[in-house]
Amino acid sequence: MKIVCLDLEGVLVPEIWINVAERTGIEELRRTTRDEPDYNKLMRRRIEILKERSLTLSDIQAVIASMGPMEGAKAFLDELRSLTQVIILSDTFVEFAKPLMAQLDWPTIWCNSLEVEDGMIVRHRLRQEEGKFHAIQALKALNFSTFAAGDSYNDLKMILEADEGCLFRAPKAIIETYPHLVLTNTYDELMERIKEFLAS
Amino acid sequence: MKIVCLDLEGVLVPEIWINVAERTGIEELRRTTRDEPDYNKLMRRRIEILKERSLTLSDIQAVIASMGPMEGAKAFLDELRSLTQVIILSDTFVEFAKPLMAQLDWPTIWCNSLEVEDGMIVRHRLRQEEGKFHAIQALKALNFSTFAAGDSYNDLKMILEADEGCLFRAPKAIIETYPHLVLTNTYDELMERIKEFLAS
Repeated sequence: MKIVCLDLEGVLVPEIWINVAERTGIEELRRTTRDEPDYNKLMRRRIEILKERSLTLSDIQAVIASMGPMEGAKAFLDELRSLTQVIILSDTFVEFAKPLMAQLDWPTIWCNSLEVEDGMIVRHRLRQEEGKFHAIQALKALNFSTFAAGDSYNDLKMILEADEGCLFRAPKAIIETYPHLVLTNTYDELMERIKEFLAS
Repeated sequence: MKIVCLDLEGVLVPEIWINVAERTGIEELRRTTRDEPDYNKLMRRRIEILKERSLTLSDIQAVIASMGPMEGAKAFLDELRSLTQVIILSDTFVEFAKPLMAQLDWPTIWCNSLEVEDGMIVRHRLRQEEGKFHAIQALKALNFSTFAAGDSYNDLKMILEADEGCLFRAPKAIIETYPHLVLTNTYDELMERIKEFLAS
């Protein structure tokens, strides 16, 4: 049996924090691990900012819901789910992903979670380090033949560990560092690669 | 993060082979592992029968599509997928499950597969022995908190391995042998148990 694992942000939906920053006008929420390499420190600061601005989880969820999936993502995912098993592997939080999963008809997503008290986000909880990579390893151990696609640095170990895989709309630096990885730039190209994997 | 694993036949859809036997009028397809304890032998005979009758995979899929999910199953699963991650763990074949998955809006299912040549089923392929049990173990190793529900002997190891779980409309023999397992008989009861798990 085969299974396809897809990154979420940049592949099916826009980058969540960047859009939350834009839509709330809070410039500091634009900071990423490029600005603050310690992810836990970055997340604690983000949660602090939301608290300072009295922004509840529901407020953020409403912002995220208004983003919607990327153009063509729903049709692509609908077709893919009719062809094979799909799991979205993401480093985001299930509470953030939820409004987007609703718009994508509830595909399965494995990610992280938030602790919420009285509607306010108080803490983030990583399910495990290198969650995407370990998910592929576990699926392979269950005798699944695996395909993975993503766009970012945090997708590389997952793509390299999977039986097959490719990049999707990756930044130039990644493309240049990993010239042996196939690059796809449209859902049609990605679907074509996956269909080759399914037929093999 | 939490995840709920559900058996398919007897929990969300009717027993597939029994219904195929009824709808095709082929009495011998009613035989189960109670009549032929060697599952591989049973499956080879079933495939032989389909060949003798010139029944293609598409014919069988049409029969299965006409069965539909059990009454209330779709509404139950829709609500569940909006609350948490769900994976259907089944010993059936993905090609058989497909028409029912379409009617349930493509939930993720982990099961087995068939080899098909010129439209005819030629061979069955088990992904692994004790697939349900190993799936729960793998999910736990990925730091998921797991809940499992099923109705049959082949669900017991999965239910006992999961962090929490229950029986759903199980036969009397199982209920009597496993009195410590919670028994649910309606989707409302099952949902109530799962909501307790999600809240814990």
